[in-house]
Amino acid sequence: MKLNEIADLVGGAVDGDEGLEISGASGLEFAGSTDITFVSEPKFFPGLAKSGAGAVFVKEKIDSDKAQIIHPNPGLAFATILNHFNPTEKPSAGVHPSAALGNNVSLGADVTVSAHVSVGRDTVIGDRTVLFPGVVVGDRCQIGSDTTLYPNTVLYKDTVIGNHVILHAGSVIGSDGFSYTQDDKGQHVKLQQIGKVVIEDHVEIGANTCIDRAAFGETIIKEGVKIDNLVQIAHNCEIGKHSVIVSQTGIAGSCRIGKHVVIAGQTGIADHINIGDEVTLMAQSGVFRDIPESGTYGWAPAMKLIDLMRFMPNLLRLPQLATQVKEMERRLDKIDKS
Amino acid sequence: MKLNEIADLVGGAVDGDEGLEISGASGLEFAGSTDITFVSEPKFFPGLAKSGAGAVFVKEKIDSDKAQIIHPNPGLAFATILNHFNPTEKPSAGVHPSAALGNNVSLGADVTVSAHVSVGRDTVIGDRTVLFPGVVVGDRCQIGSDTTLYPNTVLYKDTVIGNHVILHAGSVIGSDGFSYTQDDKGQHVKLQQIGKVVIEDHVEIGANTCIDRAAFGETIIKEGVKIDNLVQIAHNCEIGKHSVIVSQTGIAGSCRIGKHVVIAGQTGIADHINIGDEVTLMAQSGVFRDIPESGTYGWAPAMKLIDLMRFMPNLLRLPQLATQVKEMERRLDKIDKS
Amino acid sequence: MKLNEIADLVGGAVDGDEGLEISGASGLEFAGSTDITFVSEPKFFPGLAKSGAGAVFVKEKIDSDKAQIIHPNPGLAFATILNHFNPTEKPSAGVHPSAALGNNVSLGADVTVSAHVSVGRDTVIGDRTVLFPGVVVGDRCQIGSDTTLYPNTVLYKDTVIGNHVILHAGSVIGSDGFSYTQDDKGQHVKLQQIGKVVIEDHVEIGANTCIDRAAFGETIIKEGVKIDNLVQIAHNCEIGKHSVIVSQTGIAGSCRIGKHVVIAGQTGIADHINIGDEVTLMAQSGVFRDIPESGTYGWAPAMKLIDLMRFMPNLLRLPQLATQVKEMERRLDKIDKS
Repeated sequence: MKLNEIADLVGGAVDGDEGLEISGASGLEFAGSTDITFVSEPKFFPGLAKSGAGAVFVKEKIDSDKAQIIHPNPGLAFATILNHFNPTEKPSAGVHPSAALGNNVSLGADVTVSAHVSVGRDTVIGDRTVLFPGVVVGDRCQIGSDTTLYPNTVLYKDTVIGNHVILHAGSVIGSDGFSYTQDDKGQHVKLQQIGKVVIEDHVEIGANTCIDRAAFGETIIKEGVKIDNLVQIAHNCEIGKHSVIVSQTGIAGSCRIGKHVVIAGQTGIADHINIGDEVTLMAQSGVFRDIPESGTYGWAPAMKLIDLMRFMPNLLRLPQLATQVKEMERRLDKIDKS
Repeated sequence: MKLNEIADLVGGAVDGDEGLEISGASGLEFAGSTDITFVSEPKFFPGLAKSGAGAVFVKEKIDSDKAQIIHPNPGLAFATILNHFNPTEKPSAGVHPSAALGNNVSLGADVTVSAHVSVGRDTVIGDRTVLFPGVVVGDRCQIGSDTTLYPNTVLYKDTVIGNHVILHAGSVIGSDGFSYTQDDKGQHVKLQQIGKVVIEDHVEIGANTCIDRAAFGETIIKEGVKIDNLVQIAHNCEIGKHSVIVSQTGIAGSCRIGKHVVIAGQTGIADHINIGDEVTLMAQSGVFRDIPESGTYGWAPAMKLIDLMRFMPNLLRLPQLATQVKEMERRLDKIDKS
Repeated sequence: MKLNEIADLVGGAVDGDEGLEISGASGLEFAGSTDITFVSEPKFFPGLAKSGAGAVFVKEKIDSDKAQIIHPNPGLAFATILNHFNPTEKPSAGVHPSAALGNNVSLGADVTVSAHVSVGRDTVIGDRTVLFPGVVVGDRCQIGSDTTLYPNTVLYKDTVIGNHVILHAGSVIGSDGFSYTQDDKGQHVKLQQIGKVVIEDHVEIGANTCIDRAAFGETIIKEGVKIDNLVQIAHNCEIGKHSVIVSQTGIAGSCRIGKHVVIAGQTGIADHINIGDEVTLMAQSGVFRDIPESGTYGWAPAMKLIDLMRFMPNLLRLPQLATQVKEMERRLDKIDKS
């Protein structure tokens, strides 16, 4: 593509050689002379100077010898071109002879059912959806259109998956919530988990992530949520629209997470916690109380960033504080003696 | 079922309309007029008042317009009825033609071997056990009766599984323990892990949980243990009867966990640690020393709850303590000057 | 084997009955009279006295009634004999009729492709490599020789795996990195992850561990690295030669981990962090800054062991410090009053 064609595609303005041939999009460190890259912040300008990229998306014209496309959201423009040059590879449509389909399975147009896939009875799968090898879909599931289930993904019975959803390999959707009551001997008696999981459109779920079915009702992952690998979401949680959950985070039962929430890696959230819209939780947080107010929180137990920035330096100089107190006690003893 | 039939089934006493028709059991928020629910503690009474439930299990007669069944353990009575109305759905018995069975596999009566299941040689599977699609069972495994292996569960060779066990999707039982020695160049030389995993009766294990085979001897999960999703149990651990391990907990090698222990989510336990009977570990605990005495412990490094309740407020007001010390130092300077 | 034959095999010297028949190698607690065991440190001498072992590898001759083989690295000698007595069981070579192979797959000599395995087009697999049942290998992968993929392992397209590599069950190699940009409405737009994963020779990777493909370029796991179960390694990480990563650790994007690094369990490392050679991170560490210097570090935020050993006792006696300060304030008030 010529640079002006790229600018037209993303709605930006060229500054430099409009006819420059661009054949790919890549990161600063990886880009070559026929690649376009992007810088979103001035701190990346030195990296750009060193980059082999032939062109760059920028927010405003910058001082650089590279051809530029000015765009109000250079990251988004870059993503558009990156994805344009690298469309998702789809296996060809059709049902592999080794696939095992239950009774009354309904397949939309151009569905791919790969080798060694099992689909339970009364399950409905929308157009152009791809089931990679080894996927197991339970009875009475509903899967939308343009959705991708990577290898060995498992959907338990009654799971509902929207359109344009991506489930990465080994993810398990709809396993039983962890719920027992005790008998007189302290033995655990399982409560059947009769609810289900609903995953709305444009959700992406990472490899080996687990989302448990509801005890009653639904565990819901709302539109546009992105979940990383090895995350645990327990029964009856609701994850609000366009929230992001990073790897190895665990969310216990019946939590309500708001919209546009960001939960960094290895965070834990206790059961029945409510997190408001636009809350950001830093990595390794532990949340044991509701956080209704938007803002950034961290540590365990989680506190506001402003409090954490006061708390943490005091914490780290605790040995000095103890020494200081000891010295003061010595002085007090001296005063008392005199 | 009529309300008095339900009372008979669980051994409780009706207070209200004995002939009330009940068609299901559900949680307070989810129950409708033909559902029975339960309240175990007075704090749930307001929720009951708002609930649409037609009847309720209670410990003692309460002031409510709903029909009641009085039962000494309302949670257990509820579980009994919930499970009565919602028996586990079993796929029909038989061996799917796509299943791959090794030599000398012994299948009990009414076993289900689903599509794309592999079973290794000399493996024995008990009556009515269900292997869902994609399960892989290694050589010389023993699996009891009435056990369920959900899709894509993996048992390595020599694994022993009891009766009435539930293994959720993607769980891996019997993978090699993490064990190396170093050669002269600091390269890691693997030690063959020649032990195995034994899982006793009535154990339930969560999705994508990993339990490593013993280096020598056995990793043992004793009767009635319940383990959540994404838990790691390393080689040579012993988990005592009726203990509970919540999601994303990791237990390092050769730990001995007692009976009726509760380990909340994201807890870590170092290797060779002994935890006594009836210990409860709070979420995100880190255990680096033995805990022989029953009771509740939390934080990392884990301390007794009573100590934690003294420690935590002091920790959180550390900035104030530092300010207080600074102020005292100012006063001391003033005294010394005068 | 006779004891002197074992000594010859490992290059050690017998002290005791050279003709003693040894039929196995085992741990101190598990060894019987025809087993050889080892002790690497004096602290294990009492355990040796109680052990039923017939012989023992030691560094220097010790006072014991057991036959000894003196060897400069008794752990390594033990591993050699353990592995000699217990070679890895290999399923027989050949392609199972249920396996699904894409176009232009190249299989080396004596490869095992088990039941229900899928291999994508243009993939190359080296000699004697074993794919256990349910393994899914994407298009254009390269897998070396003498490598083992345990059941239900998934390799996404373009993954490169070396020789003598072991991938445990349910591990996922090459899933998409977690990478989005936002549009004007705060919705997340996925960036295609066009890089790949390269795993060098002699690497072992645990069950259900996830290693994401690079955004651009490569996520690299270098020679001899050992990774435990349920570990997350994000896109564009580089793990240096002969490093060890214990269970449930998470490493965020673009980290560079040095050689001979040890990362204990449940550690988290933030993105773009550099860890130098021969760094050891204690369990449950949180690393938010570069650690260029070798040594041991722990806690979150991670600090040097020497600092931690000063910090931790002060932290744990914080309630006493607060009491001490309160008492000093009382004394100050008294002084001020007088």
